Amino acid sequence: MFDIIYLLEMIGIVAFAISGMIAARSKNMDPVGVFTIAFATALGGGTLRDLFMDNHPLYWIRHEEIPILILIMAVVYSYYRPLGKIRESNIVVPDAIGLGIFSILGAQLALDLGHSWFIASLLGVMTGTFGGMIRDTLCNEVPFIFRKDQVYASISFVGCWVYFVCNWLLESHAAALAIGLLFIVLTRLLAVRFDIRLQRDPHHH
Amino acid sequence: MFDIIYLLEMIGIVAFAISGMIAARSKNMDPVGVFTIAFATALGGGTLRDLFMDNHPLYWIRHEEIPILILIMAVVYSYYRPLGKIRESNIVVPDAIGLGIFSILGAQLALDLGHSWFIASLLGVMTGTFGGMIRDTLCNEVPFIFRKDQVYASISFVGCWVYFVCNWLLESHAAALAIGLLFIVLTRLLAVRFDIRLQRDPHHH
Amino acid sequence: MFDIIYLLEMIGIVAFAISGMIAARSKNMDPVGVFTIAFATALGGGTLRDLFMDNHPLYWIRHEEIPILILIMAVVYSYYRPLGKIRESNIVVPDAIGLGIFSILGAQLALDLGHSWFIASLLGVMTGTFGGMIRDTLCNEVPFIFRKDQVYASISFVGCWVYFVCNWLLESHAAALAIGLLFIVLTRLLAVRFDIRLQRDPHHH
Repeated sequence: MFDIIYLLEMIGIVAFAISGMIAARSKNMDPVGVFTIAFATALGGGTLRDLFMDNHPLYWIRHEEIPILILIMAVVYSYYRPLGKIRESNIVVPDAIGLGIFSILGAQLALDLGHSWFIASLLGVMTGTFGGMIRDTLCNEVPFIFRKDQVYASISFVGCWVYFVCNWLLESHAAALAIGLLFIVLTRLLAVRFDIRLQRDPHHH
Repeated sequence: MFDIIYLLEMIGIVAFAISGMIAARSKNMDPVGVFTIAFATALGGGTLRDLFMDNHPLYWIRHEEIPILILIMAVVYSYYRPLGKIRESNIVVPDAIGLGIFSILGAQLALDLGHSWFIASLLGVMTGTFGGMIRDTLCNEVPFIFRKDQVYASISFVGCWVYFVCNWLLESHAAALAIGLLFIVLTRLLAVRFDIRLQRDPHHH
Repeated sequence: MFDIIYLLEMIGIVAFAISGMIAARSKNMDPVGVFTIAFATALGGGTLRDLFMDNHPLYWIRHEEIPILILIMAVVYSYYRPLGKIRESNIVVPDAIGLGIFSILGAQLALDLGHSWFIASLLGVMTGTFGGMIRDTLCNEVPFIFRKDQVYASISFVGCWVYFVCNWLLESHAAALAIGLLFIVLTRLLAVRFDIRLQRDPHHH
C-alpha cells in the first residue's frame, strides 16, 4: 500500500501546486509569489494536519524532494512563457483531485493514529480544504468563507464517511480508498458544473 | 476540581460557539460557514494554547463530544428559523463569558505545566482572545487590531493577574477562580457599556 | 558561540519589535495594538520555526525576559512622546537586521536538528520573513504577497546558502555567520535603495 499512498500524495501535491501557480499568475505575482502560493496550497493542509496531530517531522520536512519539486515547477512555470496561457478556469480539475486525495489520506492518517471516525473526518476536511483556503484568501482577496461554493467542505466531509463505511464493509482497503476518492472528485466536479449549494442565496429572496 | 473545570470549559465553548454562529448568520453564511466560524471561535484559542505549549492531543481531539456538540448547534441554528432572530448585539454577553473562562483556564493550564506567572498570563490572553479574533477577522472583514475596543485583551491580561494573586493569597482555589472569572466578565461588560478605551482616538484631537 | 547567538537573537528581536511598533504607531494603534504587533513581528518567525520543527518550549516561553522586554518597549514607546516622531521610513534598517539574523539563525537551528541544506534554507526564509509578513498584513491591510519588493524572501534564501557554503569552506563558524548576515543585510538595503525586483511589473508593458 505504501507506494500507492505516496504516489497519490504526490499527485495531490502536484495538482494543488498547479492550482496555486495558476491562481498566483492570474494576479501577476513574481516567481517568489508563485512559489509561495504553490507551496502553501500544496502543503498547507498537510502541515496543519501534522501540527494538529503532533505528527513530526512534517511531511515536507521528511520528504525533501517535494519542496524541491514545487520550487522547480514554480521556476519553470514563471519563466517558460507557453505555460502562462493556462486559464484560471483550469484550476477546477487539479483542485478537485487535490481535495479528494488530501481529504481521504488525512482522514486515513488520523485513523492510523487511533482517532475516531468523527475526529478523522474533521481532520480529513481540514487537510483537504486548508491549502485551497490559503490560496483563495491570498489570491482572491476575498475571505474563502464568503465564496458561494461552500459545498466544497461538505463534499470532503461526506467523502471521508463514504471511505470509512466502504473500508468497514469491503475486504479491500484499496477499493475503499478508490471509492472515497472518486466520490469526492466526481461530486466536486458535478457541484461546480451545476452550481450546487447547501442554501439558497438569501439575496435572491 | 476537575468536573468544575470541565463544566466551565463547556460553558465557555458554548458561549463562544453561539457568538460565532450569530456573527456568521449576520453575514448570511450557509450552514458550513456557520459551523466553521462556530468551531474556530470556540476552539481556536484552545488550539493555539495547546500548540504553543505542546499539549497533545488537542482539546477537541481529546474531547470528541465538543466538535459533535458544535456541529449539532450549527445545524439546529441554521435550519430552525426562530433562532435566526437573535441580534448581533446579543454577542456581547456570551463573548464576555467565553473571554473570562478561556483566559483563566488557559493561564491555569500554563501554571500546571510549570510556566511563570508572566508567561501564563500571556498564554491566558492568547487563549481568551484568539477565537474572537478569528471570528471578527472572518466576519467583519476588518482586522481585529483596528477595532476600537482594544481594552478587550487588557482586561484578559489583568484578570489573569487578579486570579494569580487571589490564588496565592486565598486558601480556596475555587474562590480565586471565581474572582478572576467575575473580574473579567464584569469589567468587559462595563467596558462595552461605557465604551472605555486605553487611549483617546487620535482622530478626535 | 552560545553567548554570541543569544546576543544576535536579542538584536534581531529588538530590531523587529521596533519595526513593528513604528508600523503600529503609523496606524494610530493603542498600546495593546503596539505590543501585539511588536510581539508578533519579533516572535512570529521564531514561533513558526519552532512549531514546524517541534522544538519546544517555544523561544519566548523559554526566554521569559524577551516578552517582558517587548512589553516594556511597547509601553515606553506608546507613552513617551518624543519616540513617536520616528518615521515609517526608519523601519528599513531594523527590518533588514532582523531579516538577516533570523534567517541565518533559523537555518542554523534546522542544521543542528539534522535537516538538509535545502530544508534548512526554507526554514531560514520562513523564520526571517514570517514576522514581517504578519506586521505588513495587519498594518498595511494589503496582503504581503502583493507588495512589490518580493526580492525580500529571495535575499533571505540566497543568504542562507551563502552561509552554508562559507560554513563548509571556512574553518571559522563565526566568520561564516558574519558573512551570511552581512550578505543579507547589505543586499536588502541595496535592494530597497535601488528598487530591485525579480520581474518587471507587468502593468508597465
